[in-house]
Amino acid sequence: MAKGTLTPRAEDFPRWYQEVIALAEMGENGPAAGTMVIRPWGYGIWELFQAELDRRIKEAGAENAYFPLLIPESFLRLEAEHVEGFSPELAVVTHGGGKELDEPLVLRPTSETMVNSFFARWIQSHRDLPLLLNQWANVVRWEMRPRLFLRTREFLWQEGHTAHATEADARAYSLRILRDVYESTMVEVASLPVLTGHKTARERFAGATRTWTCEGMMGDGKALQMGTSHELGQNFAKAFGITFANAEGTTDHVWQTSWGVSTRLVGALVMGHGDDFGLRLPPALAPAEVVVLMIKEDPDVRAAAEALVEEVRAAGHRVRLDDRSETSFGRRSVGWELKGVPVRVEIGPRDLSEGTVTVVTRHLRKKENMALGGAARAVCAILSRVGTELMEEAIAARRERTADVTTLEEAVEAGSAGFARIGLGALGADGEDRLAAHALSVRCLQRADGSLAELGGTESDLIAVVGRSY
Amino acid sequence: MAKGTLTPRAEDFPRWYQEVIALAEMGENGPAAGTMVIRPWGYGIWELFQAELDRRIKEAGAENAYFPLLIPESFLRLEAEHVEGFSPELAVVTHGGGKELDEPLVLRPTSETMVNSFFARWIQSHRDLPLLLNQWANVVRWEMRPRLFLRTREFLWQEGHTAHATEADARAYSLRILRDVYESTMVEVASLPVLTGHKTARERFAGATRTWTCEGMMGDGKALQMGTSHELGQNFAKAFGITFANAEGTTDHVWQTSWGVSTRLVGALVMGHGDDFGLRLPPALAPAEVVVLMIKEDPDVRAAAEALVEEVRAAGHRVRLDDRSETSFGRRSVGWELKGVPVRVEIGPRDLSEGTVTVVTRHLRKKENMALGGAARAVCAILSRVGTELMEEAIAARRERTADVTTLEEAVEAGSAGFARIGLGALGADGEDRLAAHALSVRCLQRADGSLAELGGTESDLIAVVGRSY
Repeated sequence: MAKGTLTPRAEDFPRWYQEVIALAEMGENGPAAGTMVIRPWGYGIWELFQAELDRRIKEAGAENAYFPLLIPESFLRLEAEHVEGFSPELAVVTHGGGKELDEPLVLRPTSETMVNSFFARWIQSHRDLPLLLNQWANVVRWEMRPRLFLRTREFLWQEGHTAHATEADARAYSLRILRDVYESTMVEVASLPVLTGHKTARERFAGATRTWTCEGMMGDGKALQMGTSHELGQNFAKAFGITFANAEGTTDHVWQTSWGVSTRLVGALVMGHGDDFGLRLPPALAPAEVVVLMIKEDPDVRAAAEALVEEVRAAGHRVRLDDRSETSFGRRSVGWELKGVPVRVEIGPRDLSEGTVTVVTRHLRKKENMALGGAARAVCAILSRVGTELMEEAIAARRERTADVTTLEEAVEAGSAGFARIGLGALGADGEDRLAAHALSVRCLQRADGSLAELGGTESDLIAVVGRSY
Repeated sequence: MAKGTLTPRAEDFPRWYQEVIALAEMGENGPAAGTMVIRPWGYGIWELFQAELDRRIKEAGAENAYFPLLIPESFLRLEAEHVEGFSPELAVVTHGGGKELDEPLVLRPTSETMVNSFFARWIQSHRDLPLLLNQWANVVRWEMRPRLFLRTREFLWQEGHTAHATEADARAYSLRILRDVYESTMVEVASLPVLTGHKTARERFAGATRTWTCEGMMGDGKALQMGTSHELGQNFAKAFGITFANAEGTTDHVWQTSWGVSTRLVGALVMGHGDDFGLRLPPALAPAEVVVLMIKEDPDVRAAAEALVEEVRAAGHRVRLDDRSETSFGRRSVGWELKGVPVRVEIGPRDLSEGTVTVVTRHLRKKENMALGGAARAVCAILSRVGTELMEEAIAARRERTADVTTLEEAVEAGSAGFARIGLGALGADGEDRLAAHALSVRCLQRADGSLAELGGTESDLIAVVGRSY
């Protein structure tokens, strides 16, 4: 793990990504093709994401529940578009307890069919609405081009499922999740700027009437779909017979939403902020915000290091002591840099005899020699700035790679290197087909000012954001 | 959900259990036989258990990670006892992405084989030890007599897997988990007294050299195995080739542990504390510690109820307002009683005009009329006592059903109604076979004073605790 081990991003971005995931000890391939082991550093980031998302989901009124992994194959067939979208990706259990099963069981690729079979029983009256549930779970989709954290045959996610009395209420909730849960976490916690908008019919979730999305731009200019919130209309309600007696005493089908984000967010963090030396973590998502490195074992060094750890911890930060003096200092230092720990403090006997320590700010790769006495305060001050600075950098990079264009040819050129913004009218009826021929797609539709296209307004006001997607 | 809906426990305990799970809206059967839906009330209890366990697991130095659900069938065959123990319970994926798989994939029944295939690569030197990992995951075991929360074909759990340089270190860690994580959570958080000890060879985990256990007594006198911590010796290390260079420069196999608790703990809470009116929750595991019920919609009632909610919340408690005045007061009141909410405050216009409210302590079913002004303080005082009082009651019930005996015949009689304690010598060599003929088993071995049989001492000092198990 010596310096310069990583392939430069500009040379081969996918290879750089793979190397960061491996060398930062975030994840590895599992023994079954396409599966993934999430190692503690990767899982620690996911746990911090989870806590932030879970708090916001609960603030939005949804409660956690858990539905079975194993879905009878017949359930999937009940919603026509849904089965068409998911059947090529299914994994099927045919044997249990040493016997062949009467009906094969599918491993959930998503849980709309399972959840809605219960909603049909639990919902009777408008008093049961809205019903707002979420689950944290693993799902299985037989992806053909797996890639750690981005697209694996098993991944971890949360999936929300809700039922409402009116279309307006369902839409409002779908947008609430998009903004107050997803966009808020991505922007305020992960320091990743995202575009929000809705998908074209072509890119919509199988079974949805509208798919809202958060799209991020990665370090190579490509787009990553980071989270989606779907309006399902009454499609599943009709397929599963989810009806309720409304306040007027007549019967109606519910209006629904579903929404999810996954361990893909960990991949987004790597590709959104990483540099040629590894990962760069915003403190809010760093399993360790600060590492205090003892350059060598020595009583004075240990005393100073432990005191500093305590002081930074008392200020409310996650901090680790690295006293593995059996491993070379250089190797440890590069290791923490690869892992993206926001601040490193290096304490050795020579500096210490002069009362100083070295403080390294990871995202700037800036080394400062400073007095031991002021180090804790300086570390906290640096931590308070990292998130904002990473965000500013990401916004500037995106701005540089985004172009407003007026023709499809220009959209192809600009979209191949970043995002092209083009009026929906200029894109034309066959625009998406023509983009697809260049491996491009419309990532989202939004208003010219970047705001969400909500109720009202006409299609002609919309801008299509074109890019190359993961 | 009218009063008296529940079958009395004394009449039919299993039926009472099933009814509580259903009426308290904790769980339901899934569509595939033996699977379970965990509804928000049940999942909320599990989330509180998880938070308490996770904090203790991290304090014990283990880090969370995640390993794949899908295990190549060949992995399971590497440890002989392990495959023999688990193969009758396996669920097998034979098809993925529309094609038959080259090698069938097993859904993890537990992850020793998966985790240890990675330990073999990650562990090289004594500097890599101890390696302490934990994962929160679903597992699948094709149970033939499924029962919600107690034994389902899919369940949620945590499973810890560790590797150590010495047998002594592995044993110490296994016991640390048993006591500081499991017993501590069961006793201090769940108010459930447990016996700790180790299993006989017959009852040991498949592949372990020693299985430590926490055994609870349920409301019907039967024993529930609530959590186990296994010493694996070098069994898996040899099967998977997990070796390390020790400090002396020679190569050795690691010593290992594994340990787990599951959603079964939710079932233990129901059966350990429930009464003929439903669940009784200790506040630490209550998704709502307090419910403030508005008997009817009225501006004064609402103002008083909301103020009380705020006051109790400000004191650090989880509290809900029940203002569903469209549903009858009686129905709501019985509903919260079934769900086991520790304290209910009922506020109606009549009492309020006299400045009073009704406070109901669930575990005692005690109603008190008291001044509104002092209600919040009184509620907090009640909450501070519930856990201790539930614990005292459970200890007394266990004491009453536990007998010290000296012959196997007496053990059969006492063990059929509760726990029989008998010297291992008196049990005799064929004792376990003879107990099995009466559907009884040795739940654990411990010293006469109830302490753990650890290093040293002879078998003749041991007491066998005999009971009928779930």
